[in-house]
Amino acid sequence: MNSDSVFWKIADGRLPPPPCAATLGIEFLRVTPESGGIEVKFEATPAFLNLAGHVQGGFLAAMLDDTMGPALVATLQADEFAPTVNLNVQFHRPARVGPLKGIGRVLLRGRQVCQLSGELLQDERLVATGTATAVIRRMGTETAWAATQMPT
Amino acid sequence: MNSDSVFWKIADGRLPPPPCAATLGIEFLRVTPESGGIEVKFEATPAFLNLAGHVQGGFLAAMLDDTMGPALVATLQADEFAPTVNLNVQFHRPARVGPLKGIGRVLLRGRQVCQLSGELLQDERLVATGTATAVIRRMGTETAWAATQMPT
Repeated sequence: MNSDSVFWKIADGRLPPPPCAATLGIEFLRVTPESGGIEVKFEATPAFLNLAGHVQGGFLAAMLDDTMGPALVATLQADEFAPTVNLNVQFHRPARVGPLKGIGRVLLRGRQVCQLSGELLQDERLVATGTATAVIRRMGTETAWAATQMPT
Repeated sequence: MNSDSVFWKIADGRLPPPPCAATLGIEFLRVTPESGGIEVKFEATPAFLNLAGHVQGGFLAAMLDDTMGPALVATLQADEFAPTVNLNVQFHRPARVGPLKGIGRVLLRGRQVCQLSGELLQDERLVATGTATAVIRRMGTETAWAATQMPT
């Protein structure tokens, strides 16, 4: 953990969130890396709806990815990142336009391989659950450059 | 299969795609329900990028969901829909802003339970693969109403 890492600057509001997280309307509610936990808020917009008028499952998967990922990233050093290599999502009930809450947890914090889990709720009811595997990498020059070029 | 279903009207361009698909920049390249196959094009925008400057995995999952789902929906009657109950995605390499191609297939077309698979490519290279389980339901009054209220 490094409070000067990009993650903490974003969680503290010193930097804007990356575009994907902004698109999902992210807001950090609670980050406790000691216990490997995180709580975030998302905002489902009409742009995420499918033919049935519900939030498309893939956008719920994107929210879970942006719940589980940060739970791990909160524990990383400034020059590390951790791409998700596998994401598995179960859908419990339809979600509609409006706020959702994501709860993420690091189940296994290996030196490289990490196992994560997440829950997504709307009105305190479970909408989707997920697990993910992420692998910690040291950020190369190219990736670090990309991060500085990212639109905000 | 019913060529007057909402799906076919969208695939033919007679109706606009649902908001989630429009957000992902969907375009139907090939639909062959007889063989259970579909090819679609997506457009990754800067709004999908993560801290590393790559398309966030969840948005790739959303594209795979919108590849596998339509492969099945192409075979449905007008009053049926098929929510995804499980989505499993493997990430192979980073994707960047620009076009991606989705190839979806119905592996099992049960009367209710269906098993689907999908691939996502960028510049002819595999970016992500996925499997999904969907369950066919008859559209109730409430869902049919939601479909008519959907923003376009």
